[in-house]
Order: sequence, then C-alpha cells, then structure tokens
Amino acid sequence: MKKIITLGEVMLRLSPPGHQRFCQAQNFEIEFGGSEANVGANLATWGVFVQHLTAFPAHSLGQAAIAKLRQWGIDPSFCYQNEGRLGTYFLEKGALDRGSKIIYDRENSSFSTLDPDSVDWAELFKDADWLHWSGISPAISQSSARLTLRAVSEAQKVGVKVSGDLNYRSNLWAYGKAAYQIMPELMEHTQVMIAGKRDFEQCLNEHFESFDQAAAYAFDRFDQLEWISQTLRVTHSASHNTISAELHSRTESFHSKSYDLTPIVDRVGTGDAFAAGLIYGLLHTNPSHCIELAMAAGALKHSVPGDQLYASLDEIKEVIAGNSGKIKR
Amino acid sequence: MKKIITLGEVMLRLSPPGHQRFCQAQNFEIEFGGSEANVGANLATWGVFVQHLTAFPAHSLGQAAIAKLRQWGIDPSFCYQNEGRLGTYFLEKGALDRGSKIIYDRENSSFSTLDPDSVDWAELFKDADWLHWSGISPAISQSSARLTLRAVSEAQKVGVKVSGDLNYRSNLWAYGKAAYQIMPELMEHTQVMIAGKRDFEQCLNEHFESFDQAAAYAFDRFDQLEWISQTLRVTHSASHNTISAELHSRTESFHSKSYDLTPIVDRVGTGDAFAAGLIYGLLHTNPSHCIELAMAAGALKHSVPGDQLYASLDEIKEVIAGNSGKIKR
Amino acid sequence: MKKIITLGEVMLRLSPPGHQRFCQAQNFEIEFGGSEANVGANLATWGVFVQHLTAFPAHSLGQAAIAKLRQWGIDPSFCYQNEGRLGTYFLEKGALDRGSKIIYDRENSSFSTLDPDSVDWAELFKDADWLHWSGISPAISQSSARLTLRAVSEAQKVGVKVSGDLNYRSNLWAYGKAAYQIMPELMEHTQVMIAGKRDFEQCLNEHFESFDQAAAYAFDRFDQLEWISQTLRVTHSASHNTISAELHSRTESFHSKSYDLTPIVDRVGTGDAFAAGLIYGLLHTNPSHCIELAMAAGALKHSVPGDQLYASLDEIKEVIAGNSGKIKR
Amino acid sequence: MKKIITLGEVMLRLSPPGHQRFCQAQNFEIEFGGSEANVGANLATWGVFVQHLTAFPAHSLGQAAIAKLRQWGIDPSFCYQNEGRLGTYFLEKGALDRGSKIIYDRENSSFSTLDPDSVDWAELFKDADWLHWSGISPAISQSSARLTLRAVSEAQKVGVKVSGDLNYRSNLWAYGKAAYQIMPELMEHTQVMIAGKRDFEQCLNEHFESFDQAAAYAFDRFDQLEWISQTLRVTHSASHNTISAELHSRTESFHSKSYDLTPIVDRVGTGDAFAAGLIYGLLHTNPSHCIELAMAAGALKHSVPGDQLYASLDEIKEVIAGNSGKIKR
Amino acid sequence: MKKIITLGEVMLRLSPPGHQRFCQAQNFEIEFGGSEANVGANLATWGVFVQHLTAFPAHSLGQAAIAKLRQWGIDPSFCYQNEGRLGTYFLEKGALDRGSKIIYDRENSSFSTLDPDSVDWAELFKDADWLHWSGISPAISQSSARLTLRAVSEAQKVGVKVSGDLNYRSNLWAYGKAAYQIMPELMEHTQVMIAGKRDFEQCLNEHFESFDQAAAYAFDRFDQLEWISQTLRVTHSASHNTISAELHSRTESFHSKSYDLTPIVDRVGTGDAFAAGLIYGLLHTNPSHCIELAMAAGALKHSVPGDQLYASLDEIKEVIAGNSGKIKR
Amino acid sequence: MKKIITLGEVMLRLSPPGHQRFCQAQNFEIEFGGSEANVGANLATWGVFVQHLTAFPAHSLGQAAIAKLRQWGIDPSFCYQNEGRLGTYFLEKGALDRGSKIIYDRENSSFSTLDPDSVDWAELFKDADWLHWSGISPAISQSSARLTLRAVSEAQKVGVKVSGDLNYRSNLWAYGKAAYQIMPELMEHTQVMIAGKRDFEQCLNEHFESFDQAAAYAFDRFDQLEWISQTLRVTHSASHNTISAELHSRTESFHSKSYDLTPIVDRVGTGDAFAAGLIYGLLHTNPSHCIELAMAAGALKHSVPGDQLYASLDEIKEVIAGNSGKIKR
Repeated sequence: MKKIITLGEVMLRLSPPGHQRFCQAQNFEIEFGGSEANVGANLATWGVFVQHLTAFPAHSLGQAAIAKLRQWGIDPSFCYQNEGRLGTYFLEKGALDRGSKIIYDRENSSFSTLDPDSVDWAELFKDADWLHWSGISPAISQSSARLTLRAVSEAQKVGVKVSGDLNYRSNLWAYGKAAYQIMPELMEHTQVMIAGKRDFEQCLNEHFESFDQAAAYAFDRFDQLEWISQTLRVTHSASHNTISAELHSRTESFHSKSYDLTPIVDRVGTGDAFAAGLIYGLLHTNPSHCIELAMAAGALKHSVPGDQLYASLDEIKEVIAGNSGKIKR
Repeated sequence: MKKIITLGEVMLRLSPPGHQRFCQAQNFEIEFGGSEANVGANLATWGVFVQHLTAFPAHSLGQAAIAKLRQWGIDPSFCYQNEGRLGTYFLEKGALDRGSKIIYDRENSSFSTLDPDSVDWAELFKDADWLHWSGISPAISQSSARLTLRAVSEAQKVGVKVSGDLNYRSNLWAYGKAAYQIMPELMEHTQVMIAGKRDFEQCLNEHFESFDQAAAYAFDRFDQLEWISQTLRVTHSASHNTISAELHSRTESFHSKSYDLTPIVDRVGTGDAFAAGLIYGLLHTNPSHCIELAMAAGALKHSVPGDQLYASLDEIKEVIAGNSGKIKR
Repeated sequence: MKKIITLGEVMLRLSPPGHQRFCQAQNFEIEFGGSEANVGANLATWGVFVQHLTAFPAHSLGQAAIAKLRQWGIDPSFCYQNEGRLGTYFLEKGALDRGSKIIYDRENSSFSTLDPDSVDWAELFKDADWLHWSGISPAISQSSARLTLRAVSEAQKVGVKVSGDLNYRSNLWAYGKAAYQIMPELMEHTQVMIAGKRDFEQCLNEHFESFDQAAAYAFDRFDQLEWISQTLRVTHSASHNTISAELHSRTESFHSKSYDLTPIVDRVGTGDAFAAGLIYGLLHTNPSHCIELAMAAGALKHSVPGDQLYASLDEIKEVIAGNSGKIKR
Repeated sequence: MKKIITLGEVMLRLSPPGHQRFCQAQNFEIEFGGSEANVGANLATWGVFVQHLTAFPAHSLGQAAIAKLRQWGIDPSFCYQNEGRLGTYFLEKGALDRGSKIIYDRENSSFSTLDPDSVDWAELFKDADWLHWSGISPAISQSSARLTLRAVSEAQKVGVKVSGDLNYRSNLWAYGKAAYQIMPELMEHTQVMIAGKRDFEQCLNEHFESFDQAAAYAFDRFDQLEWISQTLRVTHSASHNTISAELHSRTESFHSKSYDLTPIVDRVGTGDAFAAGLIYGLLHTNPSHCIELAMAAGALKHSVPGDQLYASLDEIKEVIAGNSGKIKR
Repeated sequence: MKKIITLGEVMLRLSPPGHQRFCQAQNFEIEFGGSEANVGANLATWGVFVQHLTAFPAHSLGQAAIAKLRQWGIDPSFCYQNEGRLGTYFLEKGALDRGSKIIYDRENSSFSTLDPDSVDWAELFKDADWLHWSGISPAISQSSARLTLRAVSEAQKVGVKVSGDLNYRSNLWAYGKAAYQIMPELMEHTQVMIAGKRDFEQCLNEHFESFDQAAAYAFDRFDQLEWISQTLRVTHSASHNTISAELHSRTESFHSKSYDLTPIVDRVGTGDAFAAGLIYGLLHTNPSHCIELAMAAGALKHSVPGDQLYASLDEIKEVIAGNSGKIKR
Repeated sequence: MKKIITLGEVMLRLSPPGHQRFCQAQNFEIEFGGSEANVGANLATWGVFVQHLTAFPAHSLGQAAIAKLRQWGIDPSFCYQNEGRLGTYFLEKGALDRGSKIIYDRENSSFSTLDPDSVDWAELFKDADWLHWSGISPAISQSSARLTLRAVSEAQKVGVKVSGDLNYRSNLWAYGKAAYQIMPELMEHTQVMIAGKRDFEQCLNEHFESFDQAAAYAFDRFDQLEWISQTLRVTHSASHNTISAELHSRTESFHSKSYDLTPIVDRVGTGDAFAAGLIYGLLHTNPSHCIELAMAAGALKHSVPGDQLYASLDEIKEVIAGNSGKIKR
C-alpha cells in the first residue's frame, strides 16, 4: 500500500439546500472539504494510506472536522491543534445561467497560521511515496506559503515524489505577495503539475500564446518536471458542462475522452477527483489509462453532492468502459 | 430613487418538496407570492422604493405575509387589514412530460373584498413614478376590478405612468363578468402592456391573425399606449423551455436574445421577473437594452426556487453578457 | 369495474435524499413498493378494484405496509400475516454516469415463505378478471415459485386472464433453480407477456438472433399466448433515457411513439407503470391506443419520485396528445 | 365486527415544525384530521369497520384526503365529491406558557355545503351499529346542521345507537344560529353524550351550578340519554396537563385514574382518542373498564404527533396496567 | 409611536437540529441574532419604530441579514456596509445535564471595526426616544467600545434616554482592556441598567456582599441612574429553569412573579426579550406592571426557537394573567 | 494510551423523526450502533485506542458502517468482511406513557455467522489491556456464542482483563440455547460484570431474593470475578426516568448519586455509556470516583440523540460536579 501526504486547509462548507439562494435559506447543509484533503479522501477510498497535514482549532467543530477525515479513511496524526478559526466557505449551488457562488470566510484560520517548525517532518515523510500540494495553500498567507515550501523541500530531500495543482485563484492572493513571487520556487520541487495556460501565466508572470507553449516553457525551466496535465472545460451553463483532459510528458501526449454532463449535481471538488485519479494512475498504471482514469473520476464527481467523490475504482472503470448510467440491481 | 406602486393579491404558496405529487407530500414548502408583488419584490431588490397595495387578514399568517414583504424591501404601508381569508395556492412542481399544477384556493380573500374607498389614494400616489397592475386582479372579483380601475384612474390624474400585464387566465374570471367587459377600460389608462395575441383577443373580444395585427389594433385603439411587450415561450417539456421576448413601440421593434433552459428549477414568477426588468429598463435605459434586461431577468428566474428572483442587476448583466454559469469564488 | 389480482412481494424501500451516496446519508426516504403491487397501485388509481396477494410480518412495519396498500386503493384482504421479515431494498439514485444502485435485503421475507395452501384461492379469484404476476416472484424462493405457479393454474381453471412480466434478473435466482427450470410452466398459463429478447433467452434457455425470432418462438410454443409487449430503452446516462414500446399479437404489431427523458426524477417503477397501462389498455381499448397508453404511463413515471405513478388517466392522455409540460393553473 | 358511522369535516392540517411560530416557518407539516374522522380512524385501528360520511372537492388534495382515510382503514364509500374548498386549519404547537394556536380556514368547504338529500342514508346505515357526531358539524353551517340532524334521525329510525361529543366552540357558531337553537334537537336522538358543564350550558342555554346538576338536568330532559362522560383537564402549561375522566349512567358513576402528562407531544385529537375509546368500551366491555380504556387512549394520544392515535388495544391496555414507558425490545 | 435606537452586532447563528451535538449535525439551522438587535426586533413587534445601528459586509449573507432586520420590522437605514466578516456563532442546544454550548466566531467582523465617525449621529438621534446598548459591544473591540461610548454621549447631548444591559461575559473581553476600564464611563450616561451582582463587580472592579449593596453603590456613584433591574435564574438543568425579576428605583422595589419552565425550547434571547419588555414597560406603564411585563416576555421566550420572541403584547398579557397554555381555537 | 478490544454486532438503526410512530414516518433517521461498539466509541472519544471485532457485508452499507467506526475513532482493522446481511433495528422513540419500541431485523447478519477461526487472535490481543463483551453476542447465534467464548478464553491466556455486560434480553435467545447454557462459561473468564438481579437469575438459572444475594453467589462461584456493577432505573414514564448505580467488590460497595431525567432525548445507549465510564474509571481512577464517572456518563447520554455519547471527560466531570445545565458561551 502506498503512503501519500496531502497538505492544505480543510474548511467547513455551508450551503443552502437544493438551488436556494443564500437569502432564501433557513438551514445550511454541512460538508467539510478543501482541495488537497479532497484529493486525499478520494485516494483513501481507493486503498491508499493517506496522511493529511493541516491544523484545526481545539473546539468541537475542529474535532468534528478531524472525525470527518477519519471517516474518509485519512490518518489525522498530522492534524495539528492550533490557535485561530475553522476556515469556512459558503456555497450557493447555481443552475442554468446562474453560476455557483462561493463566499470564503477563511482568514485567520488555524491552518493559515500553522508554523512550519511545529511539524514533525521526519515522521511525516517516513515511508511516504508522494506529496500533493495545491496553489491554494501558498495563496492563503505568508505562513502557509512557507509551510508549503518547507513541505516540498523536505519531500525532495527524502526522494518523495511531488505533485502540485497550481490552481491559480486571483481572489486568494491577498497577503501582499503575487503568485509569481512564490510559486516558481514551489514548482522547482514538483514532478507533476496540474495546470492550464492561465495558471502558468499567473504563476510565472509570463504571457503564452497557447497551453502548448506554456507547457514547453515549464518543461524547459523546471528540471524535475515530468508530467503536466490539464482539464478542458466548456461551461455551457451552470447545469451543463463538457470536459476532457490531457497528460503531457516531455515526449508524449495523452488525451482522455470527453464527457458531456447535464444536469450537474455538484460542481465542487471535480478537479480534486481528477487530481486523485491522476496521482493514482501515475503510481499504478500507464499514462494513457491514467488520464482516462483521472478524467472519469473527475466526470463522475459531478454526480455526487459534497466535496468528495465516494466512488470505488470499479465504478470509475465502468465509467471509462461506457457502461455507466444503467440501474444496478 | 424611483417610487413604484404595485397592486394585487399576495398568496400563501404551498408546494410539495422536490418533484413529489400532492398525494405524496408529508410537508409543504412555504412561499408568499403574487404576480404584482413579485414584480415589486424584484424592483425593490434593484433599489427602487416600492409600495404594494393589498389587504391581509389580521391573524398571524397575514402578519407573516407583511413581514415577508418587508424582507423583500417592499414598504407595507398600504397593506390594509381586512376581513376574509389569506388567499392560498398549492403548487405541484412538474418535470418532464408532467406539467406543473396549481390549485387556487383564493375565494373570499381579504384582497378580493378590499373596498376602493378605504384606500388613501392621495398618499399612495404621492411622489410616485409608476403603477403596475395585472389582469389577475380584475379577474378575481367585482370589488378587485373596481379597485384596479380606481387605481389606474387615480394614477392618470396625477400623471403616474401605468404598466399592465394583461395575463389572461380563463379559470379566474368566475364572478360573472368576462374579461372583455372589464379590461378595455383598464387598458385605456395603461401606457405599457405586456400581452400576447391570445391576451389581446380575450381582453378585447376580437380575433387576430397574428400578434402583429393585435398590436397594431391596440396601438390604434388606445391613445395612451406607448409600449407593448410579449414573451415567446416554447415548452419542450416541464423541464425544458426556450424563451425570448419582444418590445414594440408605435414605430420600432426590439428583440431579445433567446434562452434555452434545462432543467428548470422553478417556472413560477418568470413572467413577473420579466415585467420587473421591463419596467426598470423603461425607466433607466434604452429599449434595446431594456428588452435584454427584462428577458435575462425572466430567464434567470427559472433557476431560482420560489416566486421571486432575488438577483442583483449585476448578476442580470452577466447573464446578458453570456458570462453565466461559471463558478464564482 | 374490473377486478384484477396482483401477486408479489411488497418491500420497504430506503433511499438517501437527492443524489447522496449511501455513505453520505443521515436519513433514508421511505417508500413501499414491489413490481406487481406497483402495477396494482397504478391500476387502482384508474378505478380498477385490485386485490394484492402477499404476506407481511405482524409487527408495526408490516402493518404500515398494509396501510400503504390501502392508501393506494388496493384491497388488502389477501395480505396474509406470516413469519419472516419485511423484505427491504436500499436504493441509491444515480445521476449522469453514475447508475442507480439497489441493494436487496429480502431473504427470508414473509412473502418468500408464504405457503400456497394457506391462500383461499376460490375467494381470491371470485369475480376476478385478470391476474398479473412477474418473474421476480418465482426467482425469490422455491416457495414463491410454487405460489406463483399455483396462482396461474387456479386462474386458468376459472378462466381469468393472466399477464406476466418475465423481468429476468440474474441476481435473484439464488435458491438453486435456474429461470428456465421454472418459468416455462408459468408461461404456459399466461396470455400476455412483457418480455424482451434476453428475458426469453434466459427463461427458455434458448438463443435468439432477434426479438422477433424470440417472439415467434414464444407464439409457437405457448398456445395460450395472445400478446407480447416489450419496452426499448436507450440509456444515454442515469439522467437521460430514450424509450418506446411495442405490442405484438400473432398477426399484428403496434409501436408507441418515443420519449426522450431528461433529467429523470426516478427510474424505479417505470416498467410497472408500463405494465399497468398495458393491462388497462388491453381491457378497455384497442391495441394501437393500448401501447401508447402503456408507454405514456411508463414515460410519465420517470417524473414521479417513488415506486408508483400517482397519475390519472386524463394526465396520461395529455401526455399521449403531446400537450404535456405546460403549467396548469 | 361492528360497523360504526362517523360524520364530519376532514381538514388539511398545516403546522410549523417543532415549536416554531407561524411567522418562523419555512415549511408546514401536513396532516389530515377532523374530530369525528379521528374517532373513526382510531376505531378502525382497533378492528371496527368504519364508514365516514363527509365531502371533498374533486381535485388532487381532496383525493389525497380520501387516500388518507383509506390508509387509516376507514371505508370512504360515503366521502362525497362536492363543490367547495378543502377545509384547512393551521396549528402552531405551543410550549410552556404559550398555548397552541389554531387558525381555522374552513368556510365554504365541500363538507359545509353537502346537501343531506344527496346522501344514500339507507345504504349508509345498513348493518350499522353506531353513529358518532360532534357539536362541530352543526356549528359550521346551516347545511351541516341539517345534515347532522338528518343523520341522527335516520339512525334512530333504524335503531342505530348514537353518540355525540357536544364540543362547544364559540368561534364556530357564525352562520346566524346559536348552539342552543340547534343542539337540543340533536341531543334528543343521542344515547351517549360527551360533555362538560359549559357544553351543557351553551347547548341548552341554561346555567348550572355544577357538572352534576347539568348531568341530572340532561338525564331528566332527554329520554333516550343513557350515558354522559366528561374529561377533566388541568392545564398547568401548554407542555404539562393532568387529565382524568368520568362516565355516568342514570344510576351509577365511574371514574378513571388520573394521568400527569409532561412534556406533551401533541395536544390535538386527545378528546377524539378518548371518544373512540369510550365508544369501543361501551360496545365491548363494562363501564368501569370502559372509562379507563377511554382515558388511557386519550392520555396516550398526547405522546403521538398528528390528529390520530395510531395505537393498538394492547398498547392501551399496557397504559391502564401502568406498565408503560419502558423500552420494548 | 416611539422611536428607539439599538446598537450592536448581528450575527449568523448556526445550530444543529434538535438536540444533536455539533459532531452529529449534517445541517445547521440558520437564525440571525444579537443581543441588542433582538431587543429591537421584539420592540418592533410591539409597534415601536426601531432603528438598529450596526455594520455588515457587502456580500449576499450581509444582505440576507439586513433583509432579516426588515422582516422583523427594524428600519435598516443605519446598517452600514463595512469591510470585515459577518460575525457568526454556533449554538449547540443542551438538554438535561448538558448545558447549551456557544462557539463564537466573530473576530474581525464588520461591526467590530465600524468607525464611530462614519455614523450620521444627528440623523440617527433625530426624533429618538431611547437608546439601548449592551456590555457585549464594548467587549468586542476597541473600536466597538469607542462606538458605544460615542453613542451614549450623543444620546445624552440630545436628551435621549439610555438603557444598558451590562451583560458581563468574561470570554469576550479579549482585546486588551478589562471591563472595568471601559464600562464605568458608559454607565455614567445610562439611566436604566440591567445587571446582577456579578455584572456590577466585573464592570466596576469592586466586591459586593449582595446585589442590594451593589445596587446601592451604583445609585450612589452614577447620578443619572434611575432604574436597576435584574433577573434571577435557577438552573435546575438545561431543560428546567426557574426565573423571576426585580426592578429597583432609588426609593422603591418591584418584584415579578416567578416562572417554572420545563422543558425549555430555546434558552437564547430570553434576557433580550426581558430587556425589550422592560424598556417598553418603562415607556408605557407603571413600574409594577413593567417588571411583570418584562419577566413574562422573558419567560415566554423560552418557548420560542431562535433569538427573537415573536409574541404580541396581548400574548404577553395573557401570560401575566396566568391564562396561558390553553389551546386557542 | 490503553488499548481496549470490544466485540459485537454493529447494526443500522432506523428511526422515525421526533416522536412519530412507525406508520407515520416518511423517512427514517440513520444511526449505526450496537451495545459493545457504543462502549468502544465512547472510550475512543476519551483517548483510548479501541479495536472493534465484528463483521460486515461487503456492500456500500457495510462500508458506510466501517467509515462510521473510523469517524468515532475506532480502529476497524478487525472488522471482517463476511457473507450475510447488515443487522438492522428499527427504533420508535416513545414519550409519556408510550415506551420506545425496537423491532430487530438482525437474523443472518454478517456478524452472526463470523467464524471464530477466521479471526487473527494473536494480532488482536497484541498490547491489549482490556476486552469488553456483552450478553447480546452469545444470544444471537451459536456461532456468535462460540466467537465470544473464544475471545474471552484468548484474553485470559494473554492476561487481558475482561468485562461483560450480561444484558439479558429474552427475545434474543432464539437459536435453541438458553442463556444459562452459555453464559456461565463466559462469566468464568470475566473480571468485571455489569448485571442486575434478573440478569444473574437468567444467566445462571437460579432464583435470588435480592441483588445482594445474587452478587454474593456470583463472587462465590466465579473465582476471577473482581467487580459487579448495576444500574438502578425507575421508569416514571418514557420521558422521565430516575437512575443511579452501584459498584461492588468482594469487600466494598460504592454508590453513585442519583439523576432525575426529564424529558429524555434518547434512551438508547445509556447503559453503554455507563459501561464505557465504568471501564475507563476502573483503569484510571478509584472505585468511588469510577462509579460516579460511569453514572454521569450514563445520565448524560439521555440528552444526546443516537447510540453514542459524544461527550468529553471534562463534560462528564462537570456533570459530577453538578455544574451542569448552564449555557456555555
């Protein structure tokens, strides 16, 4: 069994039932989620031993978050207790021409102030095979940026492979640094990047004519980089998307089939399901099957409410085989 | 800030959750709504000062209705307390080939017996810019017909512009008068009509070959008439509609773009969102943009449960711009 | 008024709300259902006097099931009280590429051990016009196979017409007998069969090149067989199916129009609604209208949550007429 | 098996969940109920054949009400279809010092306009053992008063025993007649009365010093009167009541034990459960046990949400035996 | 009609349904509340014109809070839009020996950083009769302490009466100041104080032997002080409290009757209902009736879920009269 | 950190919301629970390392149960996958004179057929400090009786202390053996017994005059027996119980204080919370404090819905200290 480390904030997700707008809600449905922990939860479903590095406040809601990680099958030994709040986000699920809407309320969270020196890095990386980070963590706070950098550096020291979902979100970079001041150093220690043209542009402060040009630039600049993967999404409406994905090495390219998804049940966490599939695929299969597995996981997530996929590898394989949608008695 | 008067019944709406049929429900979701108050609620969301003229019984449910109007931002100073019931309607939300179904239970409501002489018309129209009525009110009772006629007459006296959504519903005209006996007098005082070919036919007791012929007739007959607008809806199924709209002056015509909507979240109140957009547009912008704004508001309403739109002007403008459907973080 | 007998297990259906996966649910929605009782419930809605032959445990949940049958309009005089459990099934409603999933938990149910000799057959078939069975009952247990055989034999004795939905489900035949060892004898007493090519193959242990060949074989082998009907379903995804149906006599064939259904509300019980429509149609109308009525009932069921259709004949006729989907005020 | 006729309006009951006030509710829980139908439902639970005489509108909600009666085990053959509305009442469940609150919305209901001549009285009373009415029906409308009078007269003709729950409610007598103008004639045909001192005073337009005096007066005035029963309730708060009951013949008195009830789950329908127990007891047991059975049924109802008791005779006997409250595994 | 100003933070309240613990919840019920706004909401219910001074973030949840104030009948003209978060608190409703539990998450809220200079004080106090503040505001932040002080000073300037609920909560004073460094200056401008012995001790940094001694000290020290009121609560368990209250002037004392409350529906906001009753009583009635009215409002709140009372003056008077608990039809 | 082994069936618990009866429910609330796993879950909350020995079916519901154990903090390494069903029980929560009602549906569960030889006993007991079993397991099936006996024998071999909750339930012993044929051998290997007089009588086939006599007999007969503990419950009603507990060694007796509990939130699992407290107390404190801790845990459980306590040691200590019931902000 592989051991994979994920690192990032886990938030309380609060969303109005069905398609209610925020102002209509009389109760909020509760989920816990965060990009990297979602990746970890999905990997744990597939039999991987996952440890998630994060921090929570000591109170009952922090404990509830830890219990949720355990429920997903994630080992919470590296969920530190820390001052600060439980990061929260409010999600209004869109429909038709009304896009889903997220209000972040994550400032001063326990994760965002976690001191890298308080982490037992040696114990964390013991027997580890993989570390996964995303561009969300370094965007949250200077402290989180340092934590992420320390993690990838420590990983490199002990030969643990590193994947990073660049995931540039302009609203998050609010503590005084631009992405391009932080991300390049993180990318230097990363063997697998999930990124599109815009992610590369923002993280590297460059302009590219195309994804291909961006990918070529990245392969050229980052010695350790082995794989770049991107998803391609056409948003016909909040209820209807078409998606596919690509995986590129320095010499080869692999394309997944395309999925036409309508009506979408939950848009959140689809990229994380993709990332989990990609990591699993790179560890266990060939690149051609890997990108199909990743995209099928991502597509399937659109049918599941919440942040996590909760689907077995067998279910994903059925999606790839196209045997999907039939009632199973 | 503009002041707009709306006039009409506000009902308690009771509907089974999700797509349950009436006989399956163990609880009913509660909304308050009514065509003209919906128009008012949407206008209030956009910063208009709205006063709604109606009547409620004195009991707790009547008070809850008034509180709801306040929540929407409507000034309830002209919500009179009156004998009678709280009008109610039961809504079963359809899907696929099963159309939505409404059971009205609104006889002897407080609104339907509101005496026109009990209204302080001078105070109501003070500083007012616009009055909006619909063909539902005169269809409810003789008293409501008189109330509506009085309102448009008073509006004309003080130079307040009047819009009317003819909205012919055959089931409602049950108190002994036909629409064509009542509506023409109301239309004489109306500068903006929302109506299709069938509405004109029923309200005027005429036969028309086309909407254009009907519109020409109306412009010819009603001196004060400035604008006619209609929506065009193709009902593929209860879950899937295509809609667009037109706005006509005596000399010009303006067409909105078309929206293909699937799956529909809530069909009710879409015409009211359109009407609100139309009034707002006529007050604040040019006709070409006005009809786009109205249709975008109407289209967007299909994604929101309940009778009201709860969307900002910015959100509507994004729909017009076609930037809709993307997740906003 | 016709009297129709249906026979089969009624189960407690437990399903997570909305599109939640089993592991996400904090409560299960409750329905009662079973293929043959669903047929009966739909027929009772249309004014048929239906008696359902089954068995329940004596406890409160068994009594709740009987009360449910009464609510549907089914006469529960032949719901015997018997040792054993209340059969249960867990349903996870699928979406997009994730098919719905059923976990059966029906072993040792009261129905599965009901002794044929404990049934008052004479009283049951008194004044009866029709008996409906399905291939599920003989698949459950040896005892249920004997019960079904006894029922069709008794029906034949007193000249009651018999319909059977062959409904082959490989997971059910688990008590040591194969379908082909049991089904042919049942088919001999059956005048109306609902079956596709695969059903015929499994029930008769034959290979057929096509449905037509299978149907010809069946007409040849079973003297009493008058009608064969099959539904044709294309499963684009769990949310989107296209369906149509056919009805064949020894000399003629009738085809229904086709329905494109998206998004599906509840897939379960659609075949039972079809079967009810077929039986009703054969009793009350001509074959051409009959197959339209059956298919419209089946199509309409996709819009209703739960196992039963809860639709009037008028509503079904509107679907056939294509006037469906419009809001009815 | 005994056959009992009950007569009265069945209403849709809508109540906010838990202890919410009307103005807080976002959905209403649905029940169906009415004093006399509740009596019938409880009797049906105990194996009595019950037919309920009432009327409903033809629409889906009227049909849902009929289905509910069937679910309770009541034969709906005498549920006539009639013009008018489905009577409705809104219930806010109180707690502590806040009493439960009912808003009736039952004017012009189908029941209130049911013409006595449209009832097939001969068929209704065929093989009947008992008729139960309450003072609510004659209070609703002139038509309902005539219906009730006709019913008790017809019952007397064919020797069917009659019970009446006088149940004086001042708010209901609103059609121009006072109770004392209508009730005495009904009481003349009634062998069993459920009434307290105030009921007798209002229905007879007399003043009594005590219940005993009132009862003596009633026995004196009404030749056919055999039994008078009253419940005694001390309302400490909406959450805490103490109750007991008495049964009097012309010569003897029987007292039940007292029940101290806190916290009350649902106060509505407790008198109806008592009445059902009384009728059942008078038909099947001695007066001493009868009043215990009636009071135990009434007490037990305080623990069950909704209008009906849904308890078996065995459960009621356990309450009498005082073995109640223990968990039953 | 009186005009009353309230001032303080309005928070989003999130609580698990029923008696679930935080870790069990799958959704949170939503309320909005805050001590002073609750006072204002209750006063508005009774016909007072209330303006609430606070600040919200610009996003949808801030707008939903404003809509809630409008629904309560509060004029939101002085709800400023400000940077920062929407203050939040999580409430776990206790039972038996398990006390209710609140997790505050209100740091850096829009209210806590509202600049006193951004308030239009002249407009706010125009025609005002009363200002109400509580000890929670000055405990939140230096900025809020300054805001509160400014408010009471401005009130004094224009002769507006001031009430303050000292409401000492040790967990809140976390920005570096102790209560006794801030509160005395606020108390100097306050004519009506709601406070117990401990509140006085903490706010004045004194030790008192008894409430009477504390009250005497306060009357001695604060020239403008006219009334002191305290509630007395015995907490038998989370489900069962006994409460009463006292009102003291410099020369007289008034005691309310005592309420024994079990089982409690919602403990939160009971002090605010009391305060609203006190203010209303001081403005409209004599001190003896005033303290009964205040305590009855406070007692009644224990029966209503959420932060607000939603009860009319008539309902409160019934509680005082002891006619409470009976069902009202 | 101590390691404790618990052994027993984990069932799906399905219960109607609030106080609904089974026949009223439209959905069931889901919990997972079982006496011994509940003990384990509570111990895990307090920082003990718990491994639970049981078996589940392979399907999604079995996996959900395992995820639930993980969420509680139980290590599921010894949750075997086995043929058979997921044991289920239906719980109707009582109130007032209506006791809670349980319908077991646990025959042929995966646990009941788990083969003792398939367990890796050496690994299970490695570093273990304690084993807890209950009288439910040997009552389920011959196989479960053998499993339990094997467990206590293996525990004895390696010097692991054993506690057993005799928990005699007459309805369970249905596979042909009486309790007294099985239990004595299990009791021989048990150092701590939770049992009352009736448990001893049924398990030993003896008659005792008193609990003291039974305890004396047990100490005399079972050499290894160190502690006997019993809870004393007075069931005033389903809503109101009074409880206390005792702990006896061969030489000393310890009594807890008494708790008067009204209204009870959830009666189920209170004995398991007590047992967890007892085990924790015996491992970590003196007998006098131990019995207080156990009883406080048991009492507190009455306030928490579901099967588990979800309370920290600090919360329990507050209950012992009598500081309970106050709101904690």
